[in-house]
Amino acid sequence: MSMGQPGREVKLGIIGLGGRGRGQMALLATMPDVTIAAVCDLYDDRVKLAHDHLVEHERPAPKTTLNYHDVLAMPEVEAVVIMTSWQTHIQIAVDAMRAGKIVAMEVGGAASIDECWQMVRVSEQTGLGCMLLENCCYGKEEMTLLNMVRKGLFGELVHCQGGYQHDLRSEIGKGDIRRHYRLGNFMRRNGELYPTHELGPIAKYLDLNRGNRMVSLVSMASKARGQTAWLKENRAGDPLCDVTFNQGDIVTTMIRCANGETILLTHDCTLPRPYSRGGRIQGTRGIWQEDNRGIYIDGRSPVDESYWTHQWESDAAYMDEYCHPLWTEYEAFGRRGGHGGMDYLVLRGFIESIQQGKPFPIDVYDTAAWMAITALSEESIAMGSLPVPVPDFTDGKWMSPRAHHEGPYALDW
Amino acid sequence: MSMGQPGREVKLGIIGLGGRGRGQMALLATMPDVTIAAVCDLYDDRVKLAHDHLVEHERPAPKTTLNYHDVLAMPEVEAVVIMTSWQTHIQIAVDAMRAGKIVAMEVGGAASIDECWQMVRVSEQTGLGCMLLENCCYGKEEMTLLNMVRKGLFGELVHCQGGYQHDLRSEIGKGDIRRHYRLGNFMRRNGELYPTHELGPIAKYLDLNRGNRMVSLVSMASKARGQTAWLKENRAGDPLCDVTFNQGDIVTTMIRCANGETILLTHDCTLPRPYSRGGRIQGTRGIWQEDNRGIYIDGRSPVDESYWTHQWESDAAYMDEYCHPLWTEYEAFGRRGGHGGMDYLVLRGFIESIQQGKPFPIDVYDTAAWMAITALSEESIAMGSLPVPVPDFTDGKWMSPRAHHEGPYALDW
Repeated sequence: MSMGQPGREVKLGIIGLGGRGRGQMALLATMPDVTIAAVCDLYDDRVKLAHDHLVEHERPAPKTTLNYHDVLAMPEVEAVVIMTSWQTHIQIAVDAMRAGKIVAMEVGGAASIDECWQMVRVSEQTGLGCMLLENCCYGKEEMTLLNMVRKGLFGELVHCQGGYQHDLRSEIGKGDIRRHYRLGNFMRRNGELYPTHELGPIAKYLDLNRGNRMVSLVSMASKARGQTAWLKENRAGDPLCDVTFNQGDIVTTMIRCANGETILLTHDCTLPRPYSRGGRIQGTRGIWQEDNRGIYIDGRSPVDESYWTHQWESDAAYMDEYCHPLWTEYEAFGRRGGHGGMDYLVLRGFIESIQQGKPFPIDVYDTAAWMAITALSEESIAMGSLPVPVPDFTDGKWMSPRAHHEGPYALDW
Repeated sequence: MSMGQPGREVKLGIIGLGGRGRGQMALLATMPDVTIAAVCDLYDDRVKLAHDHLVEHERPAPKTTLNYHDVLAMPEVEAVVIMTSWQTHIQIAVDAMRAGKIVAMEVGGAASIDECWQMVRVSEQTGLGCMLLENCCYGKEEMTLLNMVRKGLFGELVHCQGGYQHDLRSEIGKGDIRRHYRLGNFMRRNGELYPTHELGPIAKYLDLNRGNRMVSLVSMASKARGQTAWLKENRAGDPLCDVTFNQGDIVTTMIRCANGETILLTHDCTLPRPYSRGGRIQGTRGIWQEDNRGIYIDGRSPVDESYWTHQWESDAAYMDEYCHPLWTEYEAFGRRGGHGGMDYLVLRGFIESIQQGKPFPIDVYDTAAWMAITALSEESIAMGSLPVPVPDFTDGKWMSPRAHHEGPYALDW
């Protein structure tokens, strides 16, 4: 590979310039082979901040607009990066592909299954790729675990778990429903709102859409008490104290895969807790678990015959031994960007795929399947935890080998 | 209380003398106010072992029989302790109550919902109590957590988790289907076979059957790969290698409670892993988690304002501070018996309730509800993870205060 070697210029339009959008734009703007040709948001203060950032960093001044259709109409824009509110990602992506633009999207869940199908169909019809920027697929830990899985350390995989377990009470409690989508989602919806940080890596461990796929799902939601309790204690008198939150504090989702594996997801954002993605991987030969940094591998982990059960090992030595080649090279090159460096990798995976004409490492079928979990979980909860089928967005193509990303950013093989 | 002070004599019949039965019998035989009047098993070698143990320990020689109906016909037997195969507990309990005997049962799940109803109805009709000997309700950790919950440390409870996560591959792989029920259960059934070690304590945290109850359940099973993979690697040539195991390696069960809490159970016995009951308690003010011995409590756990999220504390100091009064007294008295001392406590809870004419701390409604989870989970899995209702075995009595155990062994208040 040639990490850090610039390829041909890619001209981007950036749509959505909240905190995350500006951060990712700034990271893209450090790449010599990327030009930010246009920046767009509903709010002109954000557009100005983005514009000024680029100029201050001696990058070309971008075109600015409050209407994303303007970006889609710019012939010089080859690809767009969508970082708007969760519920607008797919519609903008569909419009962008129809306008001939390649698409990357920040994470978030789908609001309906139909919009996922629409995204898939438009990508198929236009031949344009659509990549979910699931940065956690490129986390050092997740890629190392992927490497362990591929090398058979866990034997045949049987069960994976993960969660988005992040105390967001003070974030949600800021109460800016106009300018941040999160509050509205927690007030109105009830489901697995944010599945992809854990599901993305798990999907790659389990070969989802590549010889395996998710077939059904059931979700259950607890009562919603955490956000209001926090508001009453920390924001007494705020009108938000009287708001009814629909989103259950803990939403648990069980997914069954075609090859018989189960996946357990937890959404846990309105109760006090340390952050954790709650990872767990189990196979016929071993287990890894995030919360205690523990691993146990049959035939490898030390066995104390005098003790009645197995004992955990620290995963530290395994993490070193199985470090993914991309991360070995990346650390030599030097980590950059947010979230421990994984933001940079997922953006480079997108940019370099465009430059080299390769399929995206996270393609439109992955994007649709992972985002669909949100809508499906809402449906299941609305029906009292009925199981719902997970659509096969590949129309059967998951059963056969098909074109996929090859190269350093590959997540499938 | 008067721990260690003997009460009036209680004469017991012991039915079921496998490893667990003999161990619990031996512990009962150390109690000066308990007389083992009869011992019974299907196998005469076990009966002889039990008989000889008592004689060797200078206790009266018990009557011996291979037919439990003989025990039920003995007028001197006041109560029976049933420690047979899982699937025979309830039928023997029903027969025992019909014969006028008070009942204690070792743990295990129910095979049908109807047998749970039968147990409840016969207990109601005869006025005889029926107590599940769920030792984990009396574990030091579980009672300490119960104390924390009652004192409001976690705020309003929202979600609890637990599991029976115990690598039993070598146990099951011994292959003695005639004399151990476990193999047959794993070959034929597919469900949450062993829910009560974690569900019992959780039921007490959540006031189940005392102002709250379980209302619905959904289970999902993974494929079954672990046992056969182990057999092929460790018992090549054994006919068990060719057996089909129905029991999924990982069975996950979500339960919703009347008051909106959710409970997550995991059955995980045929994959390699260290033992864990996977406890987790979450409320509006805090979280406790077993696997990392971690706790975080709003307003109490240290906050590093410069760090982006909360951080775990060790639970050690909390475990000391909130030690349950029963355990403080018990440790002064001296732990005895198996499983860290909790076996003794659950047996004394049974014996002293009889002596004092008190309701059992785990009553027939608790017993029915907890055991029913096994049958319900099998039904849910058989129907592709459909939700199933959890019966209200109290016929509405869960909504109002009712007679309950008071005293040192109390688990409700």
